[in-house]
Amino acid sequence: MKEWVYFFDLCDTAVLALSGALAAGCHRMDPFGVIVLASVTAIGGGSIRDALLGTTPVFRIRDPNYIIVILATILLTLVFIRKPKKVPQYTLPVADAFGLARFTVIGAEKALNLGLSGMIAVVMGLITGVGGGIIRDVLCRQVPMILRTEIYATASICGGIGYTVALQLGAANKAAFGFAMISALLIRLAAIKWHLKLPAFDLKNTKQ
Amino acid sequence: MKEWVYFFDLCDTAVLALSGALAAGCHRMDPFGVIVLASVTAIGGGSIRDALLGTTPVFRIRDPNYIIVILATILLTLVFIRKPKKVPQYTLPVADAFGLARFTVIGAEKALNLGLSGMIAVVMGLITGVGGGIIRDVLCRQVPMILRTEIYATASICGGIGYTVALQLGAANKAAFGFAMISALLIRLAAIKWHLKLPAFDLKNTKQ
Amino acid sequence: MKEWVYFFDLCDTAVLALSGALAAGCHRMDPFGVIVLASVTAIGGGSIRDALLGTTPVFRIRDPNYIIVILATILLTLVFIRKPKKVPQYTLPVADAFGLARFTVIGAEKALNLGLSGMIAVVMGLITGVGGGIIRDVLCRQVPMILRTEIYATASICGGIGYTVALQLGAANKAAFGFAMISALLIRLAAIKWHLKLPAFDLKNTKQ
Repeated sequence: MKEWVYFFDLCDTAVLALSGALAAGCHRMDPFGVIVLASVTAIGGGSIRDALLGTTPVFRIRDPNYIIVILATILLTLVFIRKPKKVPQYTLPVADAFGLARFTVIGAEKALNLGLSGMIAVVMGLITGVGGGIIRDVLCRQVPMILRTEIYATASICGGIGYTVALQLGAANKAAFGFAMISALLIRLAAIKWHLKLPAFDLKNTKQ
Repeated sequence: MKEWVYFFDLCDTAVLALSGALAAGCHRMDPFGVIVLASVTAIGGGSIRDALLGTTPVFRIRDPNYIIVILATILLTLVFIRKPKKVPQYTLPVADAFGLARFTVIGAEKALNLGLSGMIAVVMGLITGVGGGIIRDVLCRQVPMILRTEIYATASICGGIGYTVALQLGAANKAAFGFAMISALLIRLAAIKWHLKLPAFDLKNTKQ
Repeated sequence: MKEWVYFFDLCDTAVLALSGALAAGCHRMDPFGVIVLASVTAIGGGSIRDALLGTTPVFRIRDPNYIIVILATILLTLVFIRKPKKVPQYTLPVADAFGLARFTVIGAEKALNLGLSGMIAVVMGLITGVGGGIIRDVLCRQVPMILRTEIYATASICGGIGYTVALQLGAANKAAFGFAMISALLIRLAAIKWHLKLPAFDLKNTKQ
């Protein structure tokens, strides 16, 4: 079981690193700049969470395997994705969605393990899930995905709530984890596919 | 006494959350995006301070009342503030000023309680006071208030110095706290009202 | 020996504070805004590293000398650099390069002292070296230097690798430190002088 968790953890790290590397490619960064952006995206959210929870030195930096996975992802991205046409339109948001879903539940799990309340667990899940992507978008001077009215924070918050509630209803940790992660993923993928939006809170009445 | 401090703490959290929610409304975010921006604004400065001081898990995330206050503020904002005309021009900066003043003094107090020097206390006050607003403005891709030549960092630094000096002159903690907070608040409100500016350090000679 | 390390530490703090103050001048900030930007640039990278490593309260905030050096640097900048013509074109990038080189090696050394692996040391060196500059550029709403295709992250990563490898080859700490720092500095200065660029990873085929 442990090995599987670890394996998926490395997979998600790779997926988020890919999303960072693709964003770097859209801004014509040099290879080492790609490394920085991909790494920050992959480990940013978890690092903020760990710094806030005080579980330092932060998790990922104690284990060099994460960095090896990130470097390998970048290398493959640099070698195989050279033409813009080869990157389908949805690659980046979908890669991002997988990372969002799993990191959300991991963050919530970690907070509950420390004995914190369910509400805090949802917040920690949100930070872990969206943190890396926000840093990536801020560094690229893009409006963070979370600010563009698509169901993004929503998916993460639903995942965190689903996990916490499922555990309190007596579900096994593994079941709650899977249920919450798949919920968050489906919500986000549905939003990407059908361009779902919640009604916006709009204090401007002119179209930009 | 303790209860009052706690009560004001929750009030300031509400005020900063309101400033974040209004900023979110100006960018037409969906309700969960509003939650994220309001939360980050309300607890960002204090969380950075706690991560730097090593007093983790950071204060606010141990106490779910803060999150309840933030959620209630957002709910009221979403329900009652629906028309742009209903938000007077100065609402956002004035709400921000209250949070700036109190959080500055709280940050300075916390550093002094840990036995750090007065100069450090001023810096920690500044980080606590302006941190949340900077994160809010960076995420909204606005020039942070602190960069627009108005008396903003100035108010926070004056508050921090006022608190530290008052304590060293033998004032009671309660008196020093009130004095410093009101000073910082008045300086900032005066700057908003009369558009006060310090002379800028200007290395460009062309007007932008 | 200890005194020399400390002395250079203060020098680098001054150099990074200068780069922050010059950036503030290019955005016409008021004197206290200059203080904030210069301080964040000077101590940002090291503070992120310490928060991630859990060595809190973070190093620089325990020692008021750093703040005194930052304030003195700002005062001298405000007094002596008043005309844009007086700032030679390369001042800011060159000041930045010195800070980049030394802070990189300091960050790597600190991680190795905590018994972390060489790969982690390179990452920590990178965070320490580029962190302050990234925060400065994000706050000024500039594309971070690290995103503009020049040899920036590259110099820091080479410095970190140089230090780690030199130590493993049996070099004395002092020698490895000097070797790595000078390597990183020369790489970055050469890139500034001759506008060296690595080939960019380019997923856009139109020129912007």
